[in-house]
Amino acid sequence: VINAEKSEFNEDQAACCQISIRRRELGLEEDEEWLILCFPQFLTGYYWALFDGHGGPEAAIIASNYLHYCIKQKLEEVVGGVTEARPPMHLSGRCVCDSDPQFVEEKHIHAEDLVVGALENAFQECDEVIGQEMEATNQRGGCTALAALYFQGKLYVANAGDSRAVLVLKDNVVPMSCEFTPETERQRIQHLAFLFPKLLDGEFTRFEFPRRLKGDDVGQKVLYRDYFMEGWGYKMVEKADLKYPLVHGHGKQARLLGTLAVSRGLGDHQLKVIDTNIEVKPFLSCIPKVNVFDFALHDIKEDDVLIMATDGLWDVLCNKEVAHTVRSFLAENRTDPHRFSELAKCLVCRARGKKRGHQWMLDDSHEASYDDISVFVIPLHNRDED
Amino acid sequence: VINAEKSEFNEDQAACCQISIRRRELGLEEDEEWLILCFPQFLTGYYWALFDGHGGPEAAIIASNYLHYCIKQKLEEVVGGVTEARPPMHLSGRCVCDSDPQFVEEKHIHAEDLVVGALENAFQECDEVIGQEMEATNQRGGCTALAALYFQGKLYVANAGDSRAVLVLKDNVVPMSCEFTPETERQRIQHLAFLFPKLLDGEFTRFEFPRRLKGDDVGQKVLYRDYFMEGWGYKMVEKADLKYPLVHGHGKQARLLGTLAVSRGLGDHQLKVIDTNIEVKPFLSCIPKVNVFDFALHDIKEDDVLIMATDGLWDVLCNKEVAHTVRSFLAENRTDPHRFSELAKCLVCRARGKKRGHQWMLDDSHEASYDDISVFVIPLHNRDED
Repeated sequence: VINAEKSEFNEDQAACCQISIRRRELGLEEDEEWLILCFPQFLTGYYWALFDGHGGPEAAIIASNYLHYCIKQKLEEVVGGVTEARPPMHLSGRCVCDSDPQFVEEKHIHAEDLVVGALENAFQECDEVIGQEMEATNQRGGCTALAALYFQGKLYVANAGDSRAVLVLKDNVVPMSCEFTPETERQRIQHLAFLFPKLLDGEFTRFEFPRRLKGDDVGQKVLYRDYFMEGWGYKMVEKADLKYPLVHGHGKQARLLGTLAVSRGLGDHQLKVIDTNIEVKPFLSCIPKVNVFDFALHDIKEDDVLIMATDGLWDVLCNKEVAHTVRSFLAENRTDPHRFSELAKCLVCRARGKKRGHQWMLDDSHEASYDDISVFVIPLHNRDED
Repeated sequence: VINAEKSEFNEDQAACCQISIRRRELGLEEDEEWLILCFPQFLTGYYWALFDGHGGPEAAIIASNYLHYCIKQKLEEVVGGVTEARPPMHLSGRCVCDSDPQFVEEKHIHAEDLVVGALENAFQECDEVIGQEMEATNQRGGCTALAALYFQGKLYVANAGDSRAVLVLKDNVVPMSCEFTPETERQRIQHLAFLFPKLLDGEFTRFEFPRRLKGDDVGQKVLYRDYFMEGWGYKMVEKADLKYPLVHGHGKQARLLGTLAVSRGLGDHQLKVIDTNIEVKPFLSCIPKVNVFDFALHDIKEDDVLIMATDGLWDVLCNKEVAHTVRSFLAENRTDPHRFSELAKCLVCRARGKKRGHQWMLDDSHEASYDDISVFVIPLHNRDED
């Protein structure tokens, strides 16, 4: 993981560690406790995460210090159910109803769903911790969070923000996350403003228009979208429509309340729209979307890797370009024991570009990334299994 | 379209018609009005719809009488933009800003998006009409709505409920809708109850459990899901968790507030949970999801059809079985001029099954459908083009 070093402060943070989850054998009678000795006392998970801070690096730093702990804690809370293919209805393992296993089966609940639930709860817990820490130290800001967990033969990728994780396999590129921005989450955000108009304090319009409207547009019918529309319609413009739009701009310029470029993440508890009393937090979500990749269903090859990176990389390189770089770099560097970290450096350097005069340019003479750039290259292949 | 005739009242309704959309050439100066003569005065759409009523057939009947009119009206409101590949920012066609076309292009707005928006708005309008009609005549009930519109070379399928539309093509089966049930929309429904707990009036719990909890579960940790979870966790059961769940049951037994089996549709404005003051309508959505199929991108063959059917068919036959029946029936009946309506009858009869004693059974001796069954078979191929 390297940063681009073009801005004064680096707001990206990274973390990786092993997570040991203590098994609690609940539901054992005292004279059965010897059973514990038959099982390993810990389950092991492997964790990588990237946090892209905004409004200062503080939230990203706290998240990088706490999220793995929250995940450990949430996994330990459900560990009794995680070791079974079908988690029991009761964590104690005791059956209250004879048909309980049947109900669990009907709902298609698997051990994997407990890990997904634990990750969802861990992000929420971590968001609360950040809120408390920031309040206690009178700091501000927030961050996106992208976390990968390898646990019990499966890879879980939890994402809240605009970082991205992609599996680059021999014959296949598998996206493991999708981006949450004011643009991709427009309908959720507009719906909340429809349900609670007071959140906009009369300063914003919840409608989307192709551009910000002005006086000349009043009385005309212009293209618009409301919360329930994937399509577009025409709306007679009233004076209230001239207010600044709740979600505005396009692509990298899209902003929530004119303030934030992401719609999910951790922190931002104190964030208000400049010069107003309008809070941004109600429109943000700290809940990740979790994607699962089951290693048992795939034949993992030696050069197969998981690429995790902040938007600094993806703003200038698409999945296909990254996959191409990954494959050719690893093919050319078969023997280098540091080839995966060298590849990460190579990807960062490609996105950073080269300085030409005052500008940073890519090889193809497009403009390079001016954002912080962080990249993990995580090999998936287990040599011991060969 | 045929019904199964097993129940006393048929609650399915069907409608189909041509929709003529009057072009209004706005933005023409008086001396340019002769231009109108160069264009046809009407655009033509073709419309098919199925409505599956509940709590009586009334809402389905009103919907079958009004939805096409609402669609016509909403399309006429945007017709000035529909005829251009890129709709203008202003319906009048006049440019207020020189860069307006660029803004529209940046947002990727196409004529197709106006049709989608018109359908979304038409469903909402129709829901209001049904509300007024039902109130005026003191009637109750609601219905699902599945509408297909062929317009300007594209097929639009708008769905609110658990009916289904599928394209059966020569080498391909393309789903054109997805089902909206309390189960598929659990998170949306639970989230609303989280935001407005009063909607449950203390009578329901918003949490999902594998089964309804009872006294013996209190104090135990059992599997649960909240609105923000796709995964599962364990929750210490409190007395409040013994309340009836907001979304309960599995598959065809899933119910919203113990009352309704669908989560989207029209009507139900007066519906309350039995013996309470709890309204169901706030949890229902009348907004359809619209899918688009562009005929220009596909080589349509003579036997390619759109199958639309209420849940009576899909409860007992899957897409694959229906596609198989469609292909073999049409191959065997090349010359019959009524082969498409005969195929619809054949599909209904297959799902209705045969009476054996008191039971209706399918050919494979599974139980047949006891619900109303309605099927449209719509040929896609245009003979004139051969």
